Amino acid sequence: MSDLCFMTVGELSRLIRQRDVSVREVMDAHLAQIDRVNPRVNAIVTYLPDEGRKQADQADQRLAKGEIPGPLFGLPVAHKDLVVTRGIRTTWGSPIYRDFIPDQDALIVERLRRAGAITIGKTNTPEFGAGSQTFNPVFGATLNPYDVTKTCGGSSGGAAVALACGMLPIADGSDMGGSLRNPASFCNVVGFRTTAGRVPRWPALNGWGNLSVEGPMARTVIDVALLLSVMAGPDARCPLSLPDPGTNFLQPLERNFTGTRIAFSKDFGGLPVDVRVTTALEAGKPAFEAIGCIVEETQPAFTEADEVFKVLRAFSFASTYADLFRTHRNQMKDTVVWNIEEGLALNALQVGQAEIKRTALYQRMIRFMDTYPFMVFPVTQVPPFDVTVPYITEIEGVVMDTYIDWMRSCYYISVTGMPAIAVPCGFTPEGLPVGLQIVGRPQDEMGVLQLAYAFEQATRTGKRRPPAAE
Amino acid sequence: MSDLCFMTVGELSRLIRQRDVSVREVMDAHLAQIDRVNPRVNAIVTYLPDEGRKQADQADQRLAKGEIPGPLFGLPVAHKDLVVTRGIRTTWGSPIYRDFIPDQDALIVERLRRAGAITIGKTNTPEFGAGSQTFNPVFGATLNPYDVTKTCGGSSGGAAVALACGMLPIADGSDMGGSLRNPASFCNVVGFRTTAGRVPRWPALNGWGNLSVEGPMARTVIDVALLLSVMAGPDARCPLSLPDPGTNFLQPLERNFTGTRIAFSKDFGGLPVDVRVTTALEAGKPAFEAIGCIVEETQPAFTEADEVFKVLRAFSFASTYADLFRTHRNQMKDTVVWNIEEGLALNALQVGQAEIKRTALYQRMIRFMDTYPFMVFPVTQVPPFDVTVPYITEIEGVVMDTYIDWMRSCYYISVTGMPAIAVPCGFTPEGLPVGLQIVGRPQDEMGVLQLAYAFEQATRTGKRRPPAAE
Repeated sequence: MSDLCFMTVGELSRLIRQRDVSVREVMDAHLAQIDRVNPRVNAIVTYLPDEGRKQADQADQRLAKGEIPGPLFGLPVAHKDLVVTRGIRTTWGSPIYRDFIPDQDALIVERLRRAGAITIGKTNTPEFGAGSQTFNPVFGATLNPYDVTKTCGGSSGGAAVALACGMLPIADGSDMGGSLRNPASFCNVVGFRTTAGRVPRWPALNGWGNLSVEGPMARTVIDVALLLSVMAGPDARCPLSLPDPGTNFLQPLERNFTGTRIAFSKDFGGLPVDVRVTTALEAGKPAFEAIGCIVEETQPAFTEADEVFKVLRAFSFASTYADLFRTHRNQMKDTVVWNIEEGLALNALQVGQAEIKRTALYQRMIRFMDTYPFMVFPVTQVPPFDVTVPYITEIEGVVMDTYIDWMRSCYYISVTGMPAIAVPCGFTPEGLPVGLQIVGRPQDEMGVLQLAYAFEQATRTGKRRPPAAE
Repeated sequence: MSDLCFMTVGELSRLIRQRDVSVREVMDAHLAQIDRVNPRVNAIVTYLPDEGRKQADQADQRLAKGEIPGPLFGLPVAHKDLVVTRGIRTTWGSPIYRDFIPDQDALIVERLRRAGAITIGKTNTPEFGAGSQTFNPVFGATLNPYDVTKTCGGSSGGAAVALACGMLPIADGSDMGGSLRNPASFCNVVGFRTTAGRVPRWPALNGWGNLSVEGPMARTVIDVALLLSVMAGPDARCPLSLPDPGTNFLQPLERNFTGTRIAFSKDFGGLPVDVRVTTALEAGKPAFEAIGCIVEETQPAFTEADEVFKVLRAFSFASTYADLFRTHRNQMKDTVVWNIEEGLALNALQVGQAEIKRTALYQRMIRFMDTYPFMVFPVTQVPPFDVTVPYITEIEGVVMDTYIDWMRSCYYISVTGMPAIAVPCGFTPEGLPVGLQIVGRPQDEMGVLQLAYAFEQATRTGKRRPPAAE
């Protein structure tokens, strides 16, 4: 295993720019790591090593000719298999699209490429991204590198595992109910769900849809910030675009948090949470105090969040998949069929009332955050679980009624529309990663990054704990 | 009639700041104009002259003590009767709320007040703002000052008439299907529908709703820009807030449009338009050429716009009024009942499919506007019509099926989410005002204001044509 595979983006970029290593060397190191580790974890499911090497050589030539390298110059990347890639198979984890090859790149792919990243494949995802467990009938399951009998979470599971194992330095993901955060938590990496419009989505069937967002994943907060600087910024094709330039996120992450009030909640005020998660979270709490925060155990009431999310998710599934459902229902997994059927059974008023309840929740959150500009929660109510279990049906004795119930700690935040980052917090006694979720005020991605960075620095304990499969 | 009643905001503010006139004098002039003209047109329906005089005197005292005046210091304003005003009756034009007195101010009211404007009442609107004709059972109809047998349009009808008659220098309005633009067109003033989030809405039942926007109305483009500078800018209570500061709109409006390509369409590619409107529009066309634009008669295809708007409007009505409908249906006008029932009959999938079609339309518009950054259309397909007619049922021989069909030239633009301004263009042979609609790229309010300003300057013909009722 090469040291190149576990550097930060900053370190790697510096070596490339100073021509201490060639892009080809960086590429070869990562391809070697993929060849060695990926067969054990199944994170990268469409793999283009020859194309990667070719583009790496071209990048080296352009650098030699004096090209000014973009912010991600020469870095290998693989895209979540829910985003379209021109000329590269894109399956959505569905057998229906087993051999589908799009003729255009998603905007996020275009932006990464323009910043100099080199696409070497696609990362695994559950079928249509449904459920925070990465398995599908096309490619099978992606395994947790800290224990390959466990799930890596999802839906950006392939991305999280590829990062954890040093197969990629950066990755993209997406998040409706937790899909950037849950796999980050399960794999000891960082995933950032931003405000809708911060990372413009295109193509998107519903351009005004704001529940699902795309975003950055990496091994450190500073790498996530750098990646966000490339992904963010307006594009006319996305009507929700926030106009701030992405380069805003290149500002220093250092900030004095002395006196900043933080609401710290181990259970959202009543959700069942596995004791191994709460224990890890408790252990992380002093770090916020160490950087000067005033930490109080409190939270706003998430009263409407559950119903709102379920209605809006079902509405989204029905809207997105109604046509496909008519023609290919027998090739869809049961949970997806259920979610579409739930949506097809809704009337318009139920959707409208969910938006109204969501707004009431949002207003309560905003008022709460006048006092507490940041909130800290668990990312996921359970640690990584057996990969043969499709979804959690019980937590601490509380039965989950649907396949998404166990994702509440993530989707309660999704419905608020607020930016939320998952950062590594600790490990269970068995050595499984546990993440912590920092939520900030709407559009305050910078504040969230700064607090996550401060937390990361305060909890850095010398040597990182590498995954077993690495 | 005092000259003070027809000055621009800039002129009026200068006089106040230089203490050439007192705020009280400005107030008295406008109150006198209201007392003289309003009984003939019924624009201001809740009227607080004593409060206006009191606050004017206080403003003069504060100015004498050295207070730095805000951008709207000392200007009288009245708010559309769809926005809540603390301690001031707010009826929505509905007998259900005949005596309703809110306990909070809408954000837009709060911002105008903080900028120094003085509230002297509320402006008339159709019942629940439904239909571009301003009449309701609480206050009756608002009449067109250019011919009091005609409608002033709506739903921001009271605002437009108050401006046209010199009863107010500035006003606020709102626009789902044309309510800032249609009354501006019918009354020879300026109304600006901006991108959702440019003027944050609060309170709003559905904070993420983006079809209805609030915005500025005035007699000139530069006054509208100044008013927008106060109304715009983010507020955490509105999740769609665009982050740019409102002060951006204080930049000069002068711009060289030489070589700018403009799509000019008299009929949206096939809508029936009254020949008096197309004639006025044709007469306005050379002004765009005079300022250097390349004007081409073309338009994008608005294929999905009609269905999309009708579904989303019905969805919005059902969501907003379902509870009230159950308890007070017999106190609602037929068209509102119809619109709610249309919405209650929708299923969620129909709403989702409308959003998908809307996105397809948006993407086509964006591509079209890569070539033509601005589009020019009629505001309304007909000139002001008889005030006893609740809505238009036929245009140039084409039958309108619903009460909103005749508003297509406005709501086709609403569904795209693009900024659109209505500016005075000319008059019919009978002397009725005809407006022209300039549409710009999403979030490009500044470009729209600049082009509208250039058009206004190019068509300024010396003396303004005052309304007969003035």
